[in-house]
Amino acid sequence: MSSTYTHPDVAELTLPSVLFALSDPVRLEIVGQLAAWQAGEVPLVCASVGPEMPKSTRSHHLKVLREAGVTRSVQSGRERQLSLRREDLDARWPGLLTAVLSGVSEPIEA
Amino acid sequence: MSSTYTHPDVAELTLPSVLFALSDPVRLEIVGQLAAWQAGEVPLVCASVGPEMPKSTRSHHLKVLREAGVTRSVQSGRERQLSLRREDLDARWPGLLTAVLSGVSEPIEA
Repeated sequence: MSSTYTHPDVAELTLPSVLFALSDPVRLEIVGQLAAWQAGEVPLVCASVGPEMPKSTRSHHLKVLREAGVTRSVQSGRERQLSLRREDLDARWPGLLTAVLSGVSEPIEA
Repeated sequence: MSSTYTHPDVAELTLPSVLFALSDPVRLEIVGQLAAWQAGEVPLVCASVGPEMPKSTRSHHLKVLREAGVTRSVQSGRERQLSLRREDLDARWPGLLTAVLSGVSEPIEA
C-alpha cells in the first residue's frame, strides 16, 4: 500500500461530493471527532477514528471523506494521522461545515 | 396516483438524509430554483422544475427531496406545486441551507 494519499486541491472540491461525504452517520461522527480535536492532544489516527467497525468499512468511509476533500491523511511514522480540511472547506463554502457540525451529536468515543 | 404526498414532520428530519438529498447537482439546481422563487411569481410545479430530464428521473429526484424533508409538494388543481421547507430546515440546522445555497451556481432556467 502506498504511504501517501492523493488529495483534491481546494479548487477541485465540489459541493455535491462534499455533501455526499457528509451524508452518512458514521462519516459525520468521524468529522465531529476531527473537529473536536484540540492542538496538543494525541493526533487522531485512521486506524481508530470513528465508532467500532470492521477495518474495511472504516477504510471505505475514510476514502469517501478524503476523496471529497473533507479530510487529509498524513503518514507519520507507522501511523496515518487524520485531520479535517476545515480551512479549505470554509474558504469554498463559508458556514457550511459550522452548520453541519452544530447538527452532529456528540461522538460516542473521543 | 394519490393526490397527496406524505412529508416527514420537522422533528423527523435527519441530517444525513438532508445532506444526501442535497448531494446531487440536479437536486441542488431544483433547490436553488425553489429558493429563488419570489412571492407573487407563478408557482413552481413539479412537472417543470429543474433542468431538462426524463419525467421518471425528475420524479425520483423530487421524491428524494420530499422524503428527506427538503421540499413540500402540494396539489393545486391539476398541478403539484413545489416549495422549499426553508423554515423547517433553518429551525433544525441554522445556517445550513444558506451555506448550501450560496454554493449553488445560478439555475440554468428559472
